[in-house]
Amino acid sequence: MFSNINIVLVNTSHPGNIGSAARAMKTMGFKNLSLVNPKDFPSVKADALAVGCVDLLKNAKVFDNITSAIEGSYINIGLSARSRRASIPTLTIDESIDYIVKNSNININLIFGNESSGLSNKDLLVCDYILSLPTHDDYTSLNLSAAVQIITYALYKKSLVTKKISKSHTNLANAKERNFFIKSLILLLEQTRFITPKNHISLTKRIHILFNKSNLENEEVNMLMGMISSISKKLKK
Amino acid sequence: MFSNINIVLVNTSHPGNIGSAARAMKTMGFKNLSLVNPKDFPSVKADALAVGCVDLLKNAKVFDNITSAIEGSYINIGLSARSRRASIPTLTIDESIDYIVKNSNININLIFGNESSGLSNKDLLVCDYILSLPTHDDYTSLNLSAAVQIITYALYKKSLVTKKISKSHTNLANAKERNFFIKSLILLLEQTRFITPKNHISLTKRIHILFNKSNLENEEVNMLMGMISSISKKLKK
Repeated sequence: MFSNINIVLVNTSHPGNIGSAARAMKTMGFKNLSLVNPKDFPSVKADALAVGCVDLLKNAKVFDNITSAIEGSYINIGLSARSRRASIPTLTIDESIDYIVKNSNININLIFGNESSGLSNKDLLVCDYILSLPTHDDYTSLNLSAAVQIITYALYKKSLVTKKISKSHTNLANAKERNFFIKSLILLLEQTRFITPKNHISLTKRIHILFNKSNLENEEVNMLMGMISSISKKLKK
Repeated sequence: MFSNINIVLVNTSHPGNIGSAARAMKTMGFKNLSLVNPKDFPSVKADALAVGCVDLLKNAKVFDNITSAIEGSYINIGLSARSRRASIPTLTIDESIDYIVKNSNININLIFGNESSGLSNKDLLVCDYILSLPTHDDYTSLNLSAAVQIITYALYKKSLVTKKISKSHTNLANAKERNFFIKSLILLLEQTRFITPKNHISLTKRIHILFNKSNLENEEVNMLMGMISSISKKLKK
C-alpha cells in the first residue's frame, strides 16, 4: 500500500529518534526510510530503539544533501510548524492524507527536519507542500518519532477505510526535472539582470515556491524549457 | 476540554517512556498522568525526555495498585492488543473517540500496560472496555509513548473538527492581472518564435492552463511581469 512513500529524516541529531521513527513506521506498514546527514548513523542507539525493525535501518538510504534524497520523487511534503513564514501551500493533516492516498502509486516523500530546528528555509524550498500537524497551543513540541507516528497512523487508518485507488497524477514532473528547469530560468534571469546578487536569495526562493506549487507535469516542464531556450537563442543573436 | 481524562501507565519499566508519554500528552492538551508501580520514578531519564513537560511529571499521581488509581473514575478503557482473550467489550479507535468525546464531562481513564507484557488479565478486569489500536499485521509492537501519542492525537483532532476555520486566499491575483501577464508572455514568445502561427492555439492554451492552476498571488504576477520586462529590454539591445 505505502511502497511509494518515503520517510525522509533530515539532520537528525539523536540516533535513538531514528530507531523510534523506524518502529513507528513499521507498526503502520511503512518501510522506506531515507536519512539526510544523520549526526550518528548507523548507531547502536538507533538499533536499540528499533525493536524488531532493524531491517528498516539496514535498508535505510543515507544522503549528504536533501536534493539527492528527493531525486526521482514526484511530491515532497515537508513537516513544519512554520506555516506562516513561507507561501508554500500548507495542507491540513486531512488534506495531506487525502492527497497522499489518491496519489499512492507515485513516489512521495514525507520530510522531517532536525529535532530542535525543524526544516530549514532552504529545505522547505524543495517542498511542494507543508504539513503542519495539529497540536495544542500551549505546547506544540512534538517529538520527531511521535510526528512520524501520527502521520503514518493517520495514513494507515485511512487505508483501512479506502482500499480503492482513485485517479492519480502520473504525469507530474519529478523533482529533478523541475529543478533543472528552475535552475535554467534563474540563469537566464541573471543574464537579463532581473536577478542580481542583491536580490538573489529572495527571488530564487519565490521562483521555487511559485513553480513547486504549480504541480507541473512533464509536458509543461518541456514547454517551459522550450520557452527558455527560444529566449536564450534570441539573446545570442 | 480533556480535564477529566487521565492517562494511567501501569508497571512502566523504562522511565524514558514516562517522559515521552508526558510529552505526547501535552502536545495534545492532556495534563493528568497517573502512574501505577513505575519501576523508576521520579527519574532524570523521565525528565530528560519530557522536554518542557516536567510539570506533568511533577503533578503525576503515583499509586501502588491499579484499583486505587482508578477510584473515582466512571469509565476505564484499557489499551490492549489482546482483544480476544477477555470477554470485555472491545471498541475500535473511532468508537472510543466518539464515546470519550460524548462523555468528556465525567472522569475517564485510559490505561496502558507494561512495555513488554501490556496489561495483565487481572488489570484488564477493571476495564469497562478494551481499545485495540490499529496496527499493520506484519508488526504490531507500538511503543508505549507512541500509543499514548496516537490516542491523544485522535482525541485532540476530533475536538478540533467543530472549531475549524477555513483559510482564505486573499492575496490571489485576479483574472485581469493574470491575463495581462499571460498576454505579455505570449507576445514575448512570439518574438522569440517559440510561438508560431502553427502552434499558436495549442501553446497559448497550455500556457493558460499552467498559470491558471498555479493560484498565482499578486506579488507573484508582479515578479513574473518583472522577468518578462527584463528579458524584453535585453532583447532590444
